[in-house]
Amino acid sequence: MDFASFLTSLGTSLIIFVILMLLFTWLSGKPGNHEIYFPNRIFKGMEPSSRTRNPISWIKEAVSSSENDIIAVSGVDTAVYFCQEIIFNATANLLMLMFFFPAFSMMVLAGIVLLPSLLPLSITDHSITQNNTTSNGTFSELDKFSMGHIEQKSPRLWGHLIAVYWVSLVTYFLLWKAYKHVSEIRATALMSSEVRAEQFAVLVRDIPPPLEGETRKEQVNSYFKAIYPDTFYRSMVVTDNTKVNKIWEELEGYRKKLVRAETVYAQSKTIDKPEGIRPMNRIGFLGLCGKNVDTIEHCNEKINGLITKLETEQKVTLRDKQLSSALVFFSSRVAAASAAQNLHARMVDTWTVEDAPEPRQLIWSNLSLQFYMREVRKYIVYITVALMVVFYMIPITMISAFTTLGKLVKLMPFIKPVVNIAPIRTVLEAYLPQLALIIFLALLPKLLMFLTKLEGIPSESHAVRGASGKYFYFVVFNVFIGVTLSGTLFGNFKDLEKSSLTKIADLLGKGLPDNATFFLTYVALKFFVGYGLELSRLIPLIIFHLKKKYLCKTEAEVKEAWAPGDFGYATRVPGDLLILTITLCYSVIAPLILPFGAVYFGLGWLVLRNQALKVYVPSFESYGRMWPHMHARFLAALVLYQVTMIGYFTLKLFYFTPLLFPLLIFSLIFAVVCKKKFYGFFEHTALEVVCHELKESPNVERVYRSFVPPSLSSDKLDGDHYGDA
Amino acid sequence: MDFASFLTSLGTSLIIFVILMLLFTWLSGKPGNHEIYFPNRIFKGMEPSSRTRNPISWIKEAVSSSENDIIAVSGVDTAVYFCQEIIFNATANLLMLMFFFPAFSMMVLAGIVLLPSLLPLSITDHSITQNNTTSNGTFSELDKFSMGHIEQKSPRLWGHLIAVYWVSLVTYFLLWKAYKHVSEIRATALMSSEVRAEQFAVLVRDIPPPLEGETRKEQVNSYFKAIYPDTFYRSMVVTDNTKVNKIWEELEGYRKKLVRAETVYAQSKTIDKPEGIRPMNRIGFLGLCGKNVDTIEHCNEKINGLITKLETEQKVTLRDKQLSSALVFFSSRVAAASAAQNLHARMVDTWTVEDAPEPRQLIWSNLSLQFYMREVRKYIVYITVALMVVFYMIPITMISAFTTLGKLVKLMPFIKPVVNIAPIRTVLEAYLPQLALIIFLALLPKLLMFLTKLEGIPSESHAVRGASGKYFYFVVFNVFIGVTLSGTLFGNFKDLEKSSLTKIADLLGKGLPDNATFFLTYVALKFFVGYGLELSRLIPLIIFHLKKKYLCKTEAEVKEAWAPGDFGYATRVPGDLLILTITLCYSVIAPLILPFGAVYFGLGWLVLRNQALKVYVPSFESYGRMWPHMHARFLAALVLYQVTMIGYFTLKLFYFTPLLFPLLIFSLIFAVVCKKKFYGFFEHTALEVVCHELKESPNVERVYRSFVPPSLSSDKLDGDHYGDA
Repeated sequence: MDFASFLTSLGTSLIIFVILMLLFTWLSGKPGNHEIYFPNRIFKGMEPSSRTRNPISWIKEAVSSSENDIIAVSGVDTAVYFCQEIIFNATANLLMLMFFFPAFSMMVLAGIVLLPSLLPLSITDHSITQNNTTSNGTFSELDKFSMGHIEQKSPRLWGHLIAVYWVSLVTYFLLWKAYKHVSEIRATALMSSEVRAEQFAVLVRDIPPPLEGETRKEQVNSYFKAIYPDTFYRSMVVTDNTKVNKIWEELEGYRKKLVRAETVYAQSKTIDKPEGIRPMNRIGFLGLCGKNVDTIEHCNEKINGLITKLETEQKVTLRDKQLSSALVFFSSRVAAASAAQNLHARMVDTWTVEDAPEPRQLIWSNLSLQFYMREVRKYIVYITVALMVVFYMIPITMISAFTTLGKLVKLMPFIKPVVNIAPIRTVLEAYLPQLALIIFLALLPKLLMFLTKLEGIPSESHAVRGASGKYFYFVVFNVFIGVTLSGTLFGNFKDLEKSSLTKIADLLGKGLPDNATFFLTYVALKFFVGYGLELSRLIPLIIFHLKKKYLCKTEAEVKEAWAPGDFGYATRVPGDLLILTITLCYSVIAPLILPFGAVYFGLGWLVLRNQALKVYVPSFESYGRMWPHMHARFLAALVLYQVTMIGYFTLKLFYFTPLLFPLLIFSLIFAVVCKKKFYGFFEHTALEVVCHELKESPNVERVYRSFVPPSLSSDKLDGDHYGDA
Repeated sequence: MDFASFLTSLGTSLIIFVILMLLFTWLSGKPGNHEIYFPNRIFKGMEPSSRTRNPISWIKEAVSSSENDIIAVSGVDTAVYFCQEIIFNATANLLMLMFFFPAFSMMVLAGIVLLPSLLPLSITDHSITQNNTTSNGTFSELDKFSMGHIEQKSPRLWGHLIAVYWVSLVTYFLLWKAYKHVSEIRATALMSSEVRAEQFAVLVRDIPPPLEGETRKEQVNSYFKAIYPDTFYRSMVVTDNTKVNKIWEELEGYRKKLVRAETVYAQSKTIDKPEGIRPMNRIGFLGLCGKNVDTIEHCNEKINGLITKLETEQKVTLRDKQLSSALVFFSSRVAAASAAQNLHARMVDTWTVEDAPEPRQLIWSNLSLQFYMREVRKYIVYITVALMVVFYMIPITMISAFTTLGKLVKLMPFIKPVVNIAPIRTVLEAYLPQLALIIFLALLPKLLMFLTKLEGIPSESHAVRGASGKYFYFVVFNVFIGVTLSGTLFGNFKDLEKSSLTKIADLLGKGLPDNATFFLTYVALKFFVGYGLELSRLIPLIIFHLKKKYLCKTEAEVKEAWAPGDFGYATRVPGDLLILTITLCYSVIAPLILPFGAVYFGLGWLVLRNQALKVYVPSFESYGRMWPHMHARFLAALVLYQVTMIGYFTLKLFYFTPLLFPLLIFSLIFAVVCKKKFYGFFEHTALEVVCHELKESPNVERVYRSFVPPSLSSDKLDGDHYGDA
């Protein structure tokens, strides 16, 4: 790619972004689109749109909103996510400032008297001829700014060496500050005087079999009453809800159908035809065959039948399908927080207790998995994911092989006539493998989430953290290292056989500079097009309008159509971390990437702040437990960067390369100290935080009820009934 | 060593043992020796000796004593130690049975239909000629029984392979049972209805600086009162006691001196001289120079002066020398056990809380070491010990070089005339280096204990565990692996350069069989002479009688002279583990070692049970927290054994050697499962255990007082005074 085409691609992206932003300004002004652009506000019962028509008013709002606004509207997790954005941006900006304005950095760190600017160092080194640049002479203008332009063994490399230290120190400092800050946010949220259901409950798993003639309920109650005579409130034994859930879903389906049929019937009562047309449907397969019945009557009939069935099943479930786990409720927050940390039984694999997640994010089906089952599953999933990360090309190749036209035709003979048309055949043959790859990549987060849930994790937020971590390793390994090494790897396959740390460092050092331009473009594309689409929400808008027009009949259906979903941390965080890894790794080799990184995180902060305030509705609150994961992966990126630099300096035959090794050791110490100091509070709730007074004395009965799953709650089955079953 | 000399050495050891046992029977019958042979009984206020004069009555008593007797007399730790002895013995016995009576093992494990006896397999293999045995033909009779007698690639090796599996499985099974049993002992002790001071207290360290105008005491009280409003009782801030301790010791010294002087004076009042002789002493250096004073008057004077000084210093200490740690007392066991496990502060490096040890085993000077200081010290100590283990020869060589006669004479010219006498010179020259080695080895446990205490550990029992672990690695590495490899190592030094796991396994496999006889003799010597001396207590007896005759004047001094001390787990446990490692590693290669191992642990069980019941007085009670350490090291020995066997089978060119690798993986899984299942309860106190009712409602004030160090407790300073200072 030469300089001109780089500029072209950058320009195109910018134009797309501007168009998308203008579209956003225009579309978000229309009241009919408010459900798409301000759903979170509508949910919170606030005024959807600001009055002004100013195209940049959203930027003003985003900038002027404080962290507390974010916490109030979108929860602690989102605020923590912004901490990430801020620290990423700060890293990029601080480094950029340092590289482009050495004077500024000298002012800031007067101690380090001479922090040489790397760009002048690179540009003024004419000892390497144009033909000899790292990108094989095709991109010489940009290469001038890179470290590849510097001669081997040149003393100018000292500047770059100091820069590596500087980047690392800045990162340590910012990470430390951020961890401290996030820890404070978490503490503030946990010590809030609001009554939060999950703060009064703990989740008990691996309950041993009850004694003869004792119900689970009695067993759990007597066990906890003995230990916490004053603070134990009551318990809720987890039941096997599969059957009752199925009935309940069927019932809900018929209820929706009934409302829809009634709406349709009401709409059909025009002035001309005051009696209207009663909607009819067939009760056979997919409504295509079978007897034709009056929908309203049919639904009412079904609903009445199902309600009786549900009530019977509820009773059976509560009585006979009790499983080996329970939720236990306490009358004070301190007692619950303390119980979640204590060892209760002698054998650690029985009566395991942990913090209860929010009711809405409980994964009921995982709650009663046994201890060793969870351990075994965990390791199986880890191994599976590790194999997937390393050998992800293999299933794709298999899918590609499977999706050749010949095989498809064999499997589905009915598509043969279509395939035989020449132009369609050509297109299909060309795109089927790529399509398979794209579909696989699109399904990957879902697959990882599925695998993570298989581990037996009890809460959604924990599953999101797990899936996010797995996805991070996947993208870093395959996108970043894959792209970097692919050329080098196949060229030097023999070298790889004796692979060792220094070998890998060498390979990274060799491969990285060649791909600087690719990643520059990648980052630019990501922020211009990615954030443009994010802000303009074109696709949800189109889908919403289509649905509203052709499918939705009732209020509830319309609401469902514009429900914005949540932030999707499972893919968003790894995506950001990938950009961060790229920016970090190139920061010294090709400092030109820094402004791109800075714009990515700056723009991201702006756009996502807008989305957090107005669009996305958080689906859970984990009080910032995502942070330690981000922190660990940020550090992993830093270590990758340090290893890469060691490789690159070795390649430049710089004698003082070993001076970089202490950095690796320091990273390790930093990681250990951070973990020792901060991590405990993210794992458990510190008691000093929850011992603060509450605004009102908590209604533990209400807390208890909020945990009853909808399929088991019923007007007839009052709390006591449920409890004593 | 040939067979005859082996028998001779065995016979000599046996004769020594019999003599020592007879001596014991004779000496322990004399009432004047009761303080040496029954001190624990005397302490407990029981009848010292049993009536019978039967020489084996002690064996009867030892055998008939139950585990509960041991716990009652000597505490849980001792009972756990016997669990170790039993399981070691069971391992050895089970394996022995299996090797020598295959029929028996077949009966026991009917499932494994044909567990071939290894000895017949070895003896009947005549394919290797006598000249070709592993011990270079010098020890052919014993070699016949060993695996070295079997031809390479022989299918008979299948028998040995199965034996390796059998040994491992027996070990897993016994370890599992033992861990479960120890866990029960611990639980029973912890749930006992006696009031034990340490169960009501927790140790709080790393308290942050108090606010302006707040004392430490107020800070601690308000902090814990907020979190535990109902169960918090009071707190005791740890103070810097160095100065007050010094004064107190001086005071105690003068008090002892006074009692001694009074006794001497009373004894001097014979009928002839009813006024007696008032004892006098000089008050200068070592009582050799200075003014001659009347001792009783002088002591009284000093004591009065010191009491005033002590009181002033006590007040100053309590007011001004408060440090950043405290003991916090709760009114219930559950509250204390729960508090010790909870995270209290957001930052994990402040307000760290742990179970309080017993008052008698608190290491006061370590209590207020800061968190990071402890971490840093820990790693420094670990590295130091690791270096010591690996390079222990270096300081010894240095000491040897230093202790040549020439240098000694230079340093201490006054010994010159002695050295110049020819025979003394010869002896000194020959033995000085060895003497240095012996002194170093004798000092090693003390050195390791000193290093362990430097880590900042708060309790004696924990320090003993730490020192014991370090000593284990030292003896296994230097005695076992050192002896085994020394020949092989120096011979094949070039091979070692590319050292890897298989390489080490190879080396072990090569070296082990050559040393079988050495270790046979070693084990025999250990049990015959070691346990003979242990039982007869000759050295303490002699020392006691000498002291009683020439030094002791007062009752207290006599008591001090016969105080038996405790078990000394720090060296005893690693010693046992070394023998176990040897027995395990040779169990298949030279099964003849098994009866020796069995006798070692059987005799050990008998002798030490006698000592536990009658002699040693435990100096602390840690409720069996030693066990996980023993367990881990037992497993380490097992893994070492498995690695050795892999090496040995490789050496025999047996094709199915890889079949042994699953054992290593299984050992790993076993270790992880044991840790997950059992370890938690040894780290913390399970709440279900301590929620049992107490016999009487606890007097927490008395609990509190038991923690006041003697130098700070005083009749004048009543509890409140102390508390409110």
